[in-house]
Amino acid sequence: MRKGQVQIRDDFWSGYSELVRKTVIPYQWEALNDRVEGAEPSYAIRNFRIAAGLEEGEFGGMVFQDSDLAKWLEAVGYSLATHPDPELTKIADDAIELIGQAQREDGYLNTYFTVKEPGKRWTNLLDAHELYCAGHMIEAAVAYYNGTGKRKLLDIMCRFSDYIDSVFGTEPGKIRGYCGHQEIELALVKLYETTGEERYLKLSRYFIDERGSKPSYFTEEWERRGRTSHWVQGTVSAPNLEYNQSHLPVREQSVAVGHSVRAVYMYTAMADLARLTGDAGLREACERLWRNVTGKQMYITGGIGSTHHGEAFSFDYDLPNDTVYAETCASIGLIFWARRMLQLEAKSEYADVLERALYNNVLGSMSKDGKHFFYVNPLEVWPEASAKNPGKHHVKPVRQKWFGCSCCPPNVARLLSSLNDYIYTVSEDAKTVYAHLFIGSEAAFDLASGRVTLRQTSELPWNGRVEFRVSLPEGSVPFALALRVPNWFQSGKPALTVGGKAQDYRVENGYAIVERTWADGDTVEWLLPLETKLVAAHPLIRADAGKAAIQRGPLVYCVEEADNGAPVASLSLADEPKLAERFDAGLLGGCVVVEGDGQVDDASAWADSVPYRPLEKRTKPARFKAIPYYLWGNREPGEMSVWLRR
Amino acid sequence: MRKGQVQIRDDFWSGYSELVRKTVIPYQWEALNDRVEGAEPSYAIRNFRIAAGLEEGEFGGMVFQDSDLAKWLEAVGYSLATHPDPELTKIADDAIELIGQAQREDGYLNTYFTVKEPGKRWTNLLDAHELYCAGHMIEAAVAYYNGTGKRKLLDIMCRFSDYIDSVFGTEPGKIRGYCGHQEIELALVKLYETTGEERYLKLSRYFIDERGSKPSYFTEEWERRGRTSHWVQGTVSAPNLEYNQSHLPVREQSVAVGHSVRAVYMYTAMADLARLTGDAGLREACERLWRNVTGKQMYITGGIGSTHHGEAFSFDYDLPNDTVYAETCASIGLIFWARRMLQLEAKSEYADVLERALYNNVLGSMSKDGKHFFYVNPLEVWPEASAKNPGKHHVKPVRQKWFGCSCCPPNVARLLSSLNDYIYTVSEDAKTVYAHLFIGSEAAFDLASGRVTLRQTSELPWNGRVEFRVSLPEGSVPFALALRVPNWFQSGKPALTVGGKAQDYRVENGYAIVERTWADGDTVEWLLPLETKLVAAHPLIRADAGKAAIQRGPLVYCVEEADNGAPVASLSLADEPKLAERFDAGLLGGCVVVEGDGQVDDASAWADSVPYRPLEKRTKPARFKAIPYYLWGNREPGEMSVWLRR
Repeated sequence: MRKGQVQIRDDFWSGYSELVRKTVIPYQWEALNDRVEGAEPSYAIRNFRIAAGLEEGEFGGMVFQDSDLAKWLEAVGYSLATHPDPELTKIADDAIELIGQAQREDGYLNTYFTVKEPGKRWTNLLDAHELYCAGHMIEAAVAYYNGTGKRKLLDIMCRFSDYIDSVFGTEPGKIRGYCGHQEIELALVKLYETTGEERYLKLSRYFIDERGSKPSYFTEEWERRGRTSHWVQGTVSAPNLEYNQSHLPVREQSVAVGHSVRAVYMYTAMADLARLTGDAGLREACERLWRNVTGKQMYITGGIGSTHHGEAFSFDYDLPNDTVYAETCASIGLIFWARRMLQLEAKSEYADVLERALYNNVLGSMSKDGKHFFYVNPLEVWPEASAKNPGKHHVKPVRQKWFGCSCCPPNVARLLSSLNDYIYTVSEDAKTVYAHLFIGSEAAFDLASGRVTLRQTSELPWNGRVEFRVSLPEGSVPFALALRVPNWFQSGKPALTVGGKAQDYRVENGYAIVERTWADGDTVEWLLPLETKLVAAHPLIRADAGKAAIQRGPLVYCVEEADNGAPVASLSLADEPKLAERFDAGLLGGCVVVEGDGQVDDASAWADSVPYRPLEKRTKPARFKAIPYYLWGNREPGEMSVWLRR
Repeated sequence: MRKGQVQIRDDFWSGYSELVRKTVIPYQWEALNDRVEGAEPSYAIRNFRIAAGLEEGEFGGMVFQDSDLAKWLEAVGYSLATHPDPELTKIADDAIELIGQAQREDGYLNTYFTVKEPGKRWTNLLDAHELYCAGHMIEAAVAYYNGTGKRKLLDIMCRFSDYIDSVFGTEPGKIRGYCGHQEIELALVKLYETTGEERYLKLSRYFIDERGSKPSYFTEEWERRGRTSHWVQGTVSAPNLEYNQSHLPVREQSVAVGHSVRAVYMYTAMADLARLTGDAGLREACERLWRNVTGKQMYITGGIGSTHHGEAFSFDYDLPNDTVYAETCASIGLIFWARRMLQLEAKSEYADVLERALYNNVLGSMSKDGKHFFYVNPLEVWPEASAKNPGKHHVKPVRQKWFGCSCCPPNVARLLSSLNDYIYTVSEDAKTVYAHLFIGSEAAFDLASGRVTLRQTSELPWNGRVEFRVSLPEGSVPFALALRVPNWFQSGKPALTVGGKAQDYRVENGYAIVERTWADGDTVEWLLPLETKLVAAHPLIRADAGKAAIQRGPLVYCVEEADNGAPVASLSLADEPKLAERFDAGLLGGCVVVEGDGQVDDASAWADSVPYRPLEKRTKPARFKAIPYYLWGNREPGEMSVWLRR
């Protein structure tokens, strides 16, 4: 499927892409230009102006500050693809002009090393994010070219990539290193797919293949550097190679370790390369790592990363709800990876995870105004503990303002503005259209048998009625429509009608396959009635023992203090909680709330300062109310929990 | 009651004092002399030799290393009081000789500032523990004098205290500061009580009174020091005054904050001063803080300190079981404080807490061999999480070897070797003997009406039969015997007999008061039948919601993987668990185990990598086995939990 051929038209999602277009992108532009009152300056544009010689001054912000402008341009590229906007195009073109001016003669582009440490290029691949920034700018270049047809940034980044290719590799005289933060690997694949230039694919593969070889490049580089670090003064201990997944060659990795964003960005590139090069070892590594991450290290919300120490995975089944990390960027990276796995092989489990992360962890990270974000997405919050117990300081009960230097908000922007690209894939032989996500949209495909337009309408996430209307400008066309059977639908085979008549179908890899010669105007109805379910966690996930979560369709629910009082830990589910659901149009912009029977511990008979006393089973019945997780934290700050005692 | 008048003779406790005498004290002496193979050197003795000019070299160990020798000498003093030992006396006398040689002309004594930073005395009261080390050496001097009658160390420390008195105070020209780690305050009270010198009491009171006055001494000192710290290079931010409880004048403090050991050492001195000076404001502060600590910030094991960040209190009802700190030293400090509160007013609640901390948190910190210790005493352990989740690295599943530099092990040694001093107090008017702890012992009291000897026999913690035999060398004596009614006894009034005949009694402040003219040979039987109880936590303690702990008498129980398999979180209590108890002579040296009915989640039907699925209530009945908490971690490392789901 080519880019730009899907447009979202959806009651639920259109609001989000519009928010990104009308609020997030303009707001971030102000932030990049240090014009947001009360926010720390970003310095991003200023750094480029200094590097370009247009302004005097010192480098500001983080060593990877350039990537903020890159992510913004990438989001702009996606946005312009579906919503042309001359004014925004002008702003972006000017920024690209500036980037061109900041580029060095030899193609090198990085404002930190140009302004602050000239002559120190490539001396600290471990910490300095040079190739990472290059990767983000390549992604921006590809998105902007695809969205606008304009080549300027693409040319800049091809020049830079050519230069990088001349510096890195196994050939004599080249640096045999790779980046401390994976990102350029997946970006170079995009650049290859856009330009057709094989060298970019080869360079990406070099970075992936070289990673983890012994002796460690990072350890040797650290020795050469005099054992110093970009981040702290003085000498530091040898690099933790698990942190950036260079502890083993990637094909030998089976368990996700280290910084979770680095990990999923790398797995994304691995899956790309497995598909494009047919590398069985890479594919098997992807499949093993997928099973590990999504089977043993993922929260029910699609969050990954169990500890804020190193923003990292910890180990199998260790999924604490209160000291969680579950960084927004990590779930976004998981979505990137899931899409690549779907391209490798259309299996519904990949889309199930993609949808889980999207509707819960990622969507919940942004406030309804598009200006406040969670970086950490907890499943259990006690605001006083976040404030007063340092082990939970990273868990914020309130979304934070988008400050100058930030990774998650622009990542949300680029994902939501390209969400149209996540709905469908087309099989290699161009005979099957896979519908992974049920999001209202218009899509056009050039299939083996001709041009097909699909108009999808969906009532998700509130109702499970999905319709596809087939338009065939060139007349009847044979092709297979493959509709995902979501893992949250568990009442047998979903009903499917074509032209109002029940249609039988076979299920392959979790997709209902409807293979026929379609006529113009055919409609397919795909019925996935939503049921509210109690969900249990695997018994080895200690943190969820004796508890249940509520899920309805793709949405995970939570209970908040605003509806249920505090402490929410006092609440438990009745044996038969008789869950009832209703659409509350006035609540948080409208949502289906779930109510049920429970009981609360009766604290009335406890003296204030008697901490322990003989057990008396004193509970009183209580009706609880749960709201979709993605909407939590949009009222007064309070306690929240996804998992409820039963 | 004078010191040295109680000797423990108890089936349960004698083993511990013997362990301290025969193993802990000799082992620590080797450690102080850097002779423990495989352990980091302590440098403690070596530092004193260098300071005394007997050896060349550099200071080694922590800035407060002197306190290790002090705590050892204090334990030796207690041990010699009840078990004279010429060989040990010789060793200690030689060490004291060395200390004397290390003392400066003007009385100053601190090997760090003598050897490493001469001329920098008193320039970093915040970090450098100078007065803290002095305090520990004063405690040692008092204990050694009381235990042996030898004055040498007492004289050394009086000289140092006189010098400190000449340096600190509100008078012009004096430093108006106080120590970053409270300790000298309680030590000076002991010195006053031993020597009768009022200046020491006054100096202690000065340190307590001055603390928290504005502007902050520590903040000004930090400015004068150029905003540096002993602990890290470069400049640091302003001191966190809550950390060392100097955020407010002590009389205005109501909530325990900051480093928990510093806090309870300070509260101990405050209670001493309240008693000795009749200061109502101090007493009220002690009572407020006591209610806060023991009512809202104490674990069921008597542990305090909810976070390892700063080894600190967090806030009311925040008592996480798995990321807990509950440092051994903090519970020991709580015991010190409780004893002072009992001296202020004999109320059983103080002794209840003392007993809770002693039998659970403190006793559990030491291995049965006396050579391995927990610093952190968790209520829930998953060894893999301790190893792989950095937020739990401080929680060790195995007791650690006693390394050179350590605070908790010598603190355990000095507490256990002076435990005889915690059993009784005598009222101010010398007419009532309070029995706070039920520990077999022989005690002699000089009461208003004459000399009384009490021989206590106790079957605790396994059986609740306690007997007192009164010996009156001078014939009949009228006095009141006040026996604590423990808060774990909840079946009405315990039965009490005198000479085999039931005796009625009144209860005052939680003590059964038996007031009579006693005859030589009278025996009192005090029956506290032990019942195994399920205990619940206050509903505001979120971490324990829906759970129960098992307690029998003073002992809190726990379940271990060794008896119950893993994960222990899979286990829950039956509605009617039918708890049964039996003495298992072969288990961990003999203990009462508790068994009961529960159920475990059935993991057999779960695929390995399916983390979430619709709830099915699949449990199977299981019989669980709980052991006393203090014995946990003495078998193969495994999971442990005090709180069980119900």
